[in-house]
Amino acid sequence: MKVLEDRIREEGQILSETVLKVDSFLNHQVDTALALQIGREFKDIFGQERVTKILTVEASGIQFAMAAGIAFGVPFVYAKKKKAVTQSEEVYSAPVHSFTRQEDYRISISQKYLGPEDKVLIVDDFLATGAALVGLTDIVEAAGAELVGVGCVIEKSFQEGRGLLEQRGIRVHSLARIAAMAPGEVHFIPELIEERAEC
Amino acid sequence: MKVLEDRIREEGQILSETVLKVDSFLNHQVDTALALQIGREFKDIFGQERVTKILTVEASGIQFAMAAGIAFGVPFVYAKKKKAVTQSEEVYSAPVHSFTRQEDYRISISQKYLGPEDKVLIVDDFLATGAALVGLTDIVEAAGAELVGVGCVIEKSFQEGRGLLEQRGIRVHSLARIAAMAPGEVHFIPELIEERAEC
Repeated sequence: MKVLEDRIREEGQILSETVLKVDSFLNHQVDTALALQIGREFKDIFGQERVTKILTVEASGIQFAMAAGIAFGVPFVYAKKKKAVTQSEEVYSAPVHSFTRQEDYRISISQKYLGPEDKVLIVDDFLATGAALVGLTDIVEAAGAELVGVGCVIEKSFQEGRGLLEQRGIRVHSLARIAAMAPGEVHFIPELIEERAEC
Repeated sequence: MKVLEDRIREEGQILSETVLKVDSFLNHQVDTALALQIGREFKDIFGQERVTKILTVEASGIQFAMAAGIAFGVPFVYAKKKKAVTQSEEVYSAPVHSFTRQEDYRISISQKYLGPEDKVLIVDDFLATGAALVGLTDIVEAAGAELVGVGCVIEKSFQEGRGLLEQRGIRVHSLARIAAMAPGEVHFIPELIEERAEC
């Protein structure tokens, strides 16, 4: 997605070979027009499937799940990172290790909002180690729902996340794929028409 | 907002005289069409002001900040609940006590994304004790920005949040105002044309 790659080049802050900050337009301050475009792009990519629900994890996936939900005309569900006092009913949950924050947590969703009748598209802002996304796919499986694919805004292709998901036979599409980066420079993998992997 | 009151009556789960769950359509599973309507409603209410930025706090404010950002055609910023490893620059921050979770945390935003040139509308899903919202107004003040008002989706009018904000001279508008509730019943304060308080 060229407009996204351009914004990453212009505004992204590359703090090391693994840390990219895009908080001026994606995940702290959010360019709502760009977020809507990202939602429409996910619709173009996965729109041949009758998606019934978008799934993401709080917090920085929410704006893109909302944008995808608008484009598909369906609701979205965001997994919560720990059980709140008001969340008492049965949940599907999965453990996640955050490498950025160096902490372990659980993500969970209410069993009421995902079931065998659902065709689910998972979206998130980043695909890096894949930890949270693998947890979300576990939740989809536990719910007996069908997973259409995983759509990410930015992929750090030099990390293992895509491989972990593809090993499970999951279709993965990221809108900007970073092959390598260093302070002051970022190299993208060119966009290709992808073959659809079986889910 | 009648459609919102109807949904609260139909789907809201009143767990006690103070706890209302609306996670089937507002803050876990999200009805994207309703969220967009909520954004347009905020525009109708606060649209006479030249708002430059929407401000909220993660996570459950994000979908409504996004909807308001779409309606106003401006970006939104969501305050983070603790400093992440990748958030190293200077921030505006405020302490918050969560009565729901019985914990203290700080909310913070990067100083890069709010300044004296901004006219800010704060939005959130709930106005109850007002703890997080007062923190957000502190942040707007610290940034030297102008606060246009606070827009909330649901207000528990029997709690002190509105009073705390109005004491500061802040214009507050909630789309559904709950006067009282008990398991099985919810009583709304009728909508009125509100006088604009000076910010």
